[in-house]
Amino acid sequence: MKKSLGAKTLAQPTPVWVVGSYDSKGKPNMMTIAWGGICCSQPPCVAVSLRKATYTHGCLSERRAFTVNIPSAAQVKEADYVGTVSGRTIDKFAATKLTPVRSELVDAPYIQEFPVVIECRVIHIIEIGLHTQFVGEILDVKAEEEVLGEQGMADILKVKPFIFDPAQGAYYSLGERIGKAFSIGRKS
Amino acid sequence: MKKSLGAKTLAQPTPVWVVGSYDSKGKPNMMTIAWGGICCSQPPCVAVSLRKATYTHGCLSERRAFTVNIPSAAQVKEADYVGTVSGRTIDKFAATKLTPVRSELVDAPYIQEFPVVIECRVIHIIEIGLHTQFVGEILDVKAEEEVLGEQGMADILKVKPFIFDPAQGAYYSLGERIGKAFSIGRKS
Repeated sequence: MKKSLGAKTLAQPTPVWVVGSYDSKGKPNMMTIAWGGICCSQPPCVAVSLRKATYTHGCLSERRAFTVNIPSAAQVKEADYVGTVSGRTIDKFAATKLTPVRSELVDAPYIQEFPVVIECRVIHIIEIGLHTQFVGEILDVKAEEEVLGEQGMADILKVKPFIFDPAQGAYYSLGERIGKAFSIGRKS
Repeated sequence: MKKSLGAKTLAQPTPVWVVGSYDSKGKPNMMTIAWGGICCSQPPCVAVSLRKATYTHGCLSERRAFTVNIPSAAQVKEADYVGTVSGRTIDKFAATKLTPVRSELVDAPYIQEFPVVIECRVIHIIEIGLHTQFVGEILDVKAEEEVLGEQGMADILKVKPFIFDPAQGAYYSLGERIGKAFSIGRKS
């Protein structure tokens, strides 16, 4: 029997990604988000949603570029902290001792210490409500050599990304591989 | 040292959700997606991206409604199968023995056997490229009573949602709770 929980953002799971950007003065900034996801295969695009009140919202609107930086579970404290304070008043890179690296492809910095980073240029800005959605075309994905696995792709068991659960306001690690996609469910 | 992997949809993690809809004749249809995510808090909205070639794309365009159904890890075979065949030629509910339930709020069916379902009406349709993004306003979230936890919310450790890794084309289960959000990273 299903019970109504109301009109709430209770999707499970949501990602934990840190959005990198430059402000109007060229200062690197970052912000943690869970409202986002891949939204197109060709061109490859990722969407991130930001409240208008955030400092990052202004950075993306002006620079029309951002990075999506995927933290490893060991970096949960840094990622959480970056989501609780504003770049308007705090230099989050200095506070976390994370290192901004200027992208050669887009006008945004990525985070050196995070295992996987995605460089994007903004191609759509969609006003939805409290949040604005920025659709970024992915120009490159970069990963630390130590997390690479088969076929030179990032091995998720080495990256160890974690997820956010909006229902309980908590982070969860990744578990085990449970099957090959487009395969495990095929009927013989 | 970071290595370039190219302009690819290599975000980790992505969700595994099954989109429910009715076709023009009122036949219930469903399709598994990983390109999606929450995109606004007020109004609460979730976005799903679909290729124009899919049968579900036509259903959402016409009915302007859909459901997001969250499968549990035990339902990985059904969810995978639903992503490998087309509703144009196959009745996926009959093939999987899953049960469509008519939503009382939107013109779409949800899946009785899945632990959490989200009922949405389409408020934006955004052409990005190969994929079209449908932004749905969440009108209600329903969960099985047996997966409810503290404060009457869905307990993610009971729901057991799983994730898709685009890099390896595989599914992974959820791991352990690693911290409270907006808390674990706070500096004292």
